[in-house]
Amino acid sequence: MKRTIDVCLSPDLMHLYPVEGMTVVVVDILRATSCMTTAIAHGVKSIKTFAKLPECLACRESGYLIAGERDGKKVDGCDLGNSPFEYMNPALRGKDIAFTTTNGTQAISRSAGAAQIIIGSFLNLSAVVKYLEKTTPNLLIVCSGWKGKVNLEDTLFAGALVEHLADSFEHACDAPAIAQRLYQAGRRDLKDFLKDSSHIKRLKRLNIEKDIDFCLTADQYDVVPVIRENATITG
Amino acid sequence: MKRTIDVCLSPDLMHLYPVEGMTVVVVDILRATSCMTTAIAHGVKSIKTFAKLPECLACRESGYLIAGERDGKKVDGCDLGNSPFEYMNPALRGKDIAFTTTNGTQAISRSAGAAQIIIGSFLNLSAVVKYLEKTTPNLLIVCSGWKGKVNLEDTLFAGALVEHLADSFEHACDAPAIAQRLYQAGRRDLKDFLKDSSHIKRLKRLNIEKDIDFCLTADQYDVVPVIRENATITG
Repeated sequence: MKRTIDVCLSPDLMHLYPVEGMTVVVVDILRATSCMTTAIAHGVKSIKTFAKLPECLACRESGYLIAGERDGKKVDGCDLGNSPFEYMNPALRGKDIAFTTTNGTQAISRSAGAAQIIIGSFLNLSAVVKYLEKTTPNLLIVCSGWKGKVNLEDTLFAGALVEHLADSFEHACDAPAIAQRLYQAGRRDLKDFLKDSSHIKRLKRLNIEKDIDFCLTADQYDVVPVIRENATITG
Repeated sequence: MKRTIDVCLSPDLMHLYPVEGMTVVVVDILRATSCMTTAIAHGVKSIKTFAKLPECLACRESGYLIAGERDGKKVDGCDLGNSPFEYMNPALRGKDIAFTTTNGTQAISRSAGAAQIIIGSFLNLSAVVKYLEKTTPNLLIVCSGWKGKVNLEDTLFAGALVEHLADSFEHACDAPAIAQRLYQAGRRDLKDFLKDSSHIKRLKRLNIEKDIDFCLTADQYDVVPVIRENATITG
């Protein structure tokens, strides 16, 4: 029997998707999981993720660098924000980072209890596909969305995983098919497909088009960031 | 400024979509809203909808016919089930029906407080589009899904409404775009597009392929069932 693949289109639907024993892929294309992938690829030692800002800030005392984003902007007093380019800095090699974002780290927090949590983004698409083909349990892709609502870019990436894993997994419900069909419709030009999405418009107002272009580029890195316990990501 | 159109892909996301002052279109293609459309088109006087079975059954004392479906099957002791063909019976003309289903009447119940609730299905697609073009407030399409999970057929119909109303409404978030793109991909052959959906498989096991074919047929009826108060549907 084939393993099953499922997609949770919003963290606010997580009560319908039990994670025990599952491999969960958390997706926040713009930009949390793209940043995490970039950071691990550039030699960051570990990333501890937090849903809440105060707990994240408290890690400074234990020697962590603090990364914080709310509503697309870097939180005042944090060392790092939510642009992947910040995480290419060679000064971050070997460092531990504490990270909280508007959506991505919330989705990670709600996936607690899974056998393992994988950080997925277009930047490490093929590496994640290769990794998931080899892992044994059933698979749940969790889209971070925007404050509980579904979004295009995370659904599109979920669809990319469903498409590339079609030979190894069968759909657990209709959400994988919705995501896959969306990816099939948009794969030729992701940026054009997403041009009217609400988050792209939001980020354009923040003047970070360079981030969007980068986050939509497939296979920049051959790393698979994994959380196995304590919400700490390692490569 | 254009009016806005939004799509709630699952009743379990309704906490994110305030309905006050809105026109809500409730969608449960397979098969609750298709049955309701058929019933009103064939002269049923009114349909009172219930999320819970005992409250629905209690209406028998007030002279209602009782329609009840759970998990795709007619509930024991009910007069009617959830097949549109049952609602073509001339004996139902002028009757009042109390109706409860697994998903559709739950979605109606969660839409309470809206300015008006419209019953949408492929069977009355053009009539609903025409009606919505003329109404003034912002619009929310609520997909009934399956026990909280999203489904293909309701999302597809939401996409049909978004597509046909594109000139009159602008998207409130990304969900309308997801639905619209899905409809654009599947509109040429709805049945083929839906052939792997979980609900189609579920209903095929119940041997009701005739229902599926009918529910996917556009513009059988020129009626717009509306709920304005007390969850009672009239034409």
